[in-house]
Amino acid sequence: MSAPAPGPARFITFEGIDGSGKSTQIKRLADDLTAQGHDVIVTREPGGSAGAEEIRALVLQGEPDRWSAETEILLFTAARRDHMERTILPALAAGKIVLCDRFADSTRMYQGLSRGDLRAVVDQLHTLMIGREPDLTVLIDMDPAVGLSRALSRQTADERFEAFGEGLQAAMRQGFLDLAQAAPDRFRVVDGAREIDAIAQDIAAIVTATIT
Amino acid sequence: MSAPAPGPARFITFEGIDGSGKSTQIKRLADDLTAQGHDVIVTREPGGSAGAEEIRALVLQGEPDRWSAETEILLFTAARRDHMERTILPALAAGKIVLCDRFADSTRMYQGLSRGDLRAVVDQLHTLMIGREPDLTVLIDMDPAVGLSRALSRQTADERFEAFGEGLQAAMRQGFLDLAQAAPDRFRVVDGAREIDAIAQDIAAIVTATIT
Repeated sequence: MSAPAPGPARFITFEGIDGSGKSTQIKRLADDLTAQGHDVIVTREPGGSAGAEEIRALVLQGEPDRWSAETEILLFTAARRDHMERTILPALAAGKIVLCDRFADSTRMYQGLSRGDLRAVVDQLHTLMIGREPDLTVLIDMDPAVGLSRALSRQTADERFEAFGEGLQAAMRQGFLDLAQAAPDRFRVVDGAREIDAIAQDIAAIVTATIT
Repeated sequence: MSAPAPGPARFITFEGIDGSGKSTQIKRLADDLTAQGHDVIVTREPGGSAGAEEIRALVLQGEPDRWSAETEILLFTAARRDHMERTILPALAAGKIVLCDRFADSTRMYQGLSRGDLRAVVDQLHTLMIGREPDLTVLIDMDPAVGLSRALSRQTADERFEAFGEGLQAAMRQGFLDLAQAAPDRFRVVDGAREIDAIAQDIAAIVTATIT
């Protein structure tokens, strides 16, 4: 059996507050890239592999205080490890483009905001058990008031994340912008307060410049 | 409400190969200590708290290759963190004696034997997310041929551990003895090849010397 032909393998993640339009934009981009002949997979966190989806269900279902922040970080890291091994790395090895809705930056933000003293632990766990960062992270930045009203209108059931109020969303927005500033090689920030088409054009231009 | 009266709080773990008689000896010791007026709880790993038992089920059920060794270590560490927070530390804080069937030493052994390169990762995760070692670890040492025949005769269903063959059990025995030698302050080694009563007497003497 011959090895697969080398392709434009790229690991691209999308981050932003709830309601920032990540899912919509990922779908648009995936369709565009597929139409251009690229082999694309779309995935998400927490979850993205059979085992990681089971861990996701274990973390997100039940009472909010069912797990401590530390246990939750360990479970999310276990899910991420499985997602990397079973979904992301095999797809990259096969020359596919991986578009992932949330990744380690979301753990850095959600844990870092609820328990600031755990931010260093999140980073140490990532270094020890995951290692790899995305090749490119698209941050869709927007006013949390807009994001929150969009998120609430979706009314998804098992998303405890959605319960974050506007104050926390504002802190989260700033936290993501700080992360982007700290890792400018990997991050690109897109203004998410515009029309869907305009945002999609920006993202397409960024990604096309990266994968070619 | 006044604070609970300080008592002989001790975190005591039991280690050894399958069939070494840990459960029998823990039950005997718990009965003896209770008869002496001590407040005792018996627990076990993986598991020992509601959340940790759910993680245990997630890890031990299904196909053996369902999780990689790395993901499995993360899940066991998540379970241990929950077990510490919800069961062990509250019991110690209330002045109870905690008798725990297997703890971090079993993770060091099982992972260390199946994937030697992960032994350092197990220790780093323990330092980062668990921190504490038992006050006393009783290692029940015995010939794996004896241990294996006892373990197989129990025919427990969900214990994937039991599938370890005699060669691996022999390596495990030596691994536990090496751990004990490396941490002599914490470990006490008991000869498990004798009559149950003789072993129980040894363990009672060791524990009585420790908790008084």
